Amino acid sequence: MEQIRNYIDKNKGRFLDELFGLIRIPSISAKKDHKPEMYKAAEYIKKSLLDAGVTKAEVMETDGNPVVYAEKIIDNSKPTVLVYGHYDVMPVEPLELWKTPPFEPEVRDGKIWARGADDDKGQLFMHVKAFELMVKTQTLPCNVKFMIEGEEEIGSPNLGKFCEQHKPMLKADIILVSDTGMIAQDIPSITTGLRGLAYWEVEVTGPNRDLHSGLFGGAVANPINMLAKMISQMVDDNGRITIPGFYDDVLEVSKQERELLAKVPFNEDAYKKAIDVIELSGEKGYSTTERTGIRPTFDVCGIWGGYTGEGSKTVLPSKAFAKISCRLVPNQNHEKIAILFKEHFESMAPKGVKVEVKIHHGGQGYVCPIDLPAYKAAEKAYIESFGKRPIPVRSGGSIPIISSFENILGIKSILMGFGLESDAIHSPNEKFPLFNFYKGIETIPLFYKYFAEM
Amino acid sequence: MEQIRNYIDKNKGRFLDELFGLIRIPSISAKKDHKPEMYKAAEYIKKSLLDAGVTKAEVMETDGNPVVYAEKIIDNSKPTVLVYGHYDVMPVEPLELWKTPPFEPEVRDGKIWARGADDDKGQLFMHVKAFELMVKTQTLPCNVKFMIEGEEEIGSPNLGKFCEQHKPMLKADIILVSDTGMIAQDIPSITTGLRGLAYWEVEVTGPNRDLHSGLFGGAVANPINMLAKMISQMVDDNGRITIPGFYDDVLEVSKQERELLAKVPFNEDAYKKAIDVIELSGEKGYSTTERTGIRPTFDVCGIWGGYTGEGSKTVLPSKAFAKISCRLVPNQNHEKIAILFKEHFESMAPKGVKVEVKIHHGGQGYVCPIDLPAYKAAEKAYIESFGKRPIPVRSGGSIPIISSFENILGIKSILMGFGLESDAIHSPNEKFPLFNFYKGIETIPLFYKYFAEM
Repeated sequence: MEQIRNYIDKNKGRFLDELFGLIRIPSISAKKDHKPEMYKAAEYIKKSLLDAGVTKAEVMETDGNPVVYAEKIIDNSKPTVLVYGHYDVMPVEPLELWKTPPFEPEVRDGKIWARGADDDKGQLFMHVKAFELMVKTQTLPCNVKFMIEGEEEIGSPNLGKFCEQHKPMLKADIILVSDTGMIAQDIPSITTGLRGLAYWEVEVTGPNRDLHSGLFGGAVANPINMLAKMISQMVDDNGRITIPGFYDDVLEVSKQERELLAKVPFNEDAYKKAIDVIELSGEKGYSTTERTGIRPTFDVCGIWGGYTGEGSKTVLPSKAFAKISCRLVPNQNHEKIAILFKEHFESMAPKGVKVEVKIHHGGQGYVCPIDLPAYKAAEKAYIESFGKRPIPVRSGGSIPIISSFENILGIKSILMGFGLESDAIHSPNEKFPLFNFYKGIETIPLFYKYFAEM
Repeated sequence: MEQIRNYIDKNKGRFLDELFGLIRIPSISAKKDHKPEMYKAAEYIKKSLLDAGVTKAEVMETDGNPVVYAEKIIDNSKPTVLVYGHYDVMPVEPLELWKTPPFEPEVRDGKIWARGADDDKGQLFMHVKAFELMVKTQTLPCNVKFMIEGEEEIGSPNLGKFCEQHKPMLKADIILVSDTGMIAQDIPSITTGLRGLAYWEVEVTGPNRDLHSGLFGGAVANPINMLAKMISQMVDDNGRITIPGFYDDVLEVSKQERELLAKVPFNEDAYKKAIDVIELSGEKGYSTTERTGIRPTFDVCGIWGGYTGEGSKTVLPSKAFAKISCRLVPNQNHEKIAILFKEHFESMAPKGVKVEVKIHHGGQGYVCPIDLPAYKAAEKAYIESFGKRPIPVRSGGSIPIISSFENILGIKSILMGFGLESDAIHSPNEKFPLFNFYKGIETIPLFYKYFAEM
């Protein structure tokens, strides 16, 4: 432990400089014209891993953005940890809300400010540096493999196939991931559940062109009015989603587990203040922690149609669009839900409009049992670095590929996330506290140590 | 009549060239940076009127775009006709749907294709040319004044004040306007009613920033979901608007007048085919002609919020917006309705979001009795030029300033519109048939003749 802290102290400035080099590459996977940046980021990671001590590193092609694979095999009789992370980031709009440019990282108030500072460049870089630390201090206790992809933020559409094609290469005993959060800097936690995701784009078409709202208004169905009506019918007054069959596979969480969940520290006033809302709302009969952890949701992520420019234009538009997503809970099948919604929403089309639903990417939920050896090893690592037993929590977020790993590779994942809720991932002014970055680098080698001992 | 047709025949090419010069000026009043174009269009009209024979013409300042005023007083004992029109046009988005550029007019299939070809550059230019015809053929039977504004498409925010300030200058016996349509080329009609208008922009604010829809989804009200819910509650299942007090001042139209309205030729199949909708919809208990003519409406003209770019972004947005308008019927007060909606909509704000409604411009409806002398004169003019008695119809559109003329100047308006529904005003590929353009120039002098005789 002494040795770990010393190594970090001596190298902390360089760690940061190297991370900033990665952050400066605007590797936004949702934008097709950012392809060169994706390769640049992949090559950067390959070089970082070689510098850190892997014996083999490769930028491997997929049908989409490349995957960086690297490994250091020290002894085939020892266990193998497969580190997963992603070098792609979310779009940065609305740009005008950023206090400093998203791809020009800087340290203010003890935090790194930039897109990707936390999700996931900052967190994946902790693994590169923790690995370097173990190599340089000759404490690496087991084999390590790295698989760093560039399409996580668009649903990892090609990583499943990549895993299918490279099963022997990816053979490991556990997958180690830092792409989630912890409760607070003094309350470490390990994510034991992830929600699944289904995502759609809907298009409502009324007349074949924008019409004069005076000459036609009142007689022709307005696609925006109709889209609003359809959306409003998707969630009832109790906050329950109305898609027929939607809850069929939702496992009701036991009274015992809900009692444990109720012990997760939650300060409603602070939560509301942080996002500036007066009242919270959601599914009746569930707490905020439950609403985000163990219950599915229905959110419109974007909507557009008609005249949205300056001033007023009296138009009855031809089309209206929305991007819609549902967070799902572990036992729900995202492909089944995607079709249930599509069929239901298209069948709801009011008189005079046509409705078309396109299915975007989705993913399954995931559960990590707390009696898994890897969980026990992680727990010990946190106890040593934080001086506290970590709390097992269910996250509301989705990392669809985690359940695919289990299905395709047959390997469980352990989610050691070091982000904070206040890091504003996916939002303007994303940040990552230096404390968390260095604490991650300190905790990860301890996990390797205890995991190799199990 | 012979003389009128001869003059038009000899000059028709020049009339068109001169109109094209006006159309080429992109005088879009909704765009603030188009100010220079507004002055250019005003000066163009001033010159056209001077060339046509007015004795005085002026580009007069307002707090917004200028008004062109011109006159030719031949005898103070004779009646005076005040011609009203507007040189501003609607925005042209979406540009990609235009077959030819909106401000490069061309004649195809016997029609003029351009923004403003009908609304209102084409129609106001008929008056300039009809006036020229009467002057050059020495048949002008009365005094004429012109008031051509540049803010009709944004609700004439400064013309009321202009009228207040120039009452003596604007004194007249009738206001003559061509800014409406007729049923078909072989079915002339005169617009006897106009709908009023109220227009709002609404802003729904949830959390203070865009949130990760996984970490917060289900526990925090989504402003798009909430806006959709609020919009959906504004119109009930019978197509009735639910704003309390909204219908208080709506005069139910008599059975007798509804029977007359039922005689307006209407081909539902052709109407549906033209706009490519399978079914029409609207307020229960009313026909399509009634829904657009004598009943108020609620239309969302534009909506936006959240992520609307390429691909998918899982975001719980901070804000959602909509532009909303109601068409009103003659006895409804637009200012009262504007406040009724604002108060109602803001009070509906669901838990966890704030709602703000901004009132945009609005206007009163208008009715022209069919026993008005000007109506009788117009009727005679159409009978002579078209060989058919025109049908009195109520238009669904709004020209808010028409009712202001009545209130401020105490002068009735006669609405001799020559546009067709298929002209696609306010839409891409606006057009105006040459037949209608020349037929207007032919009919207008006949109106002057019969009106001066009354």
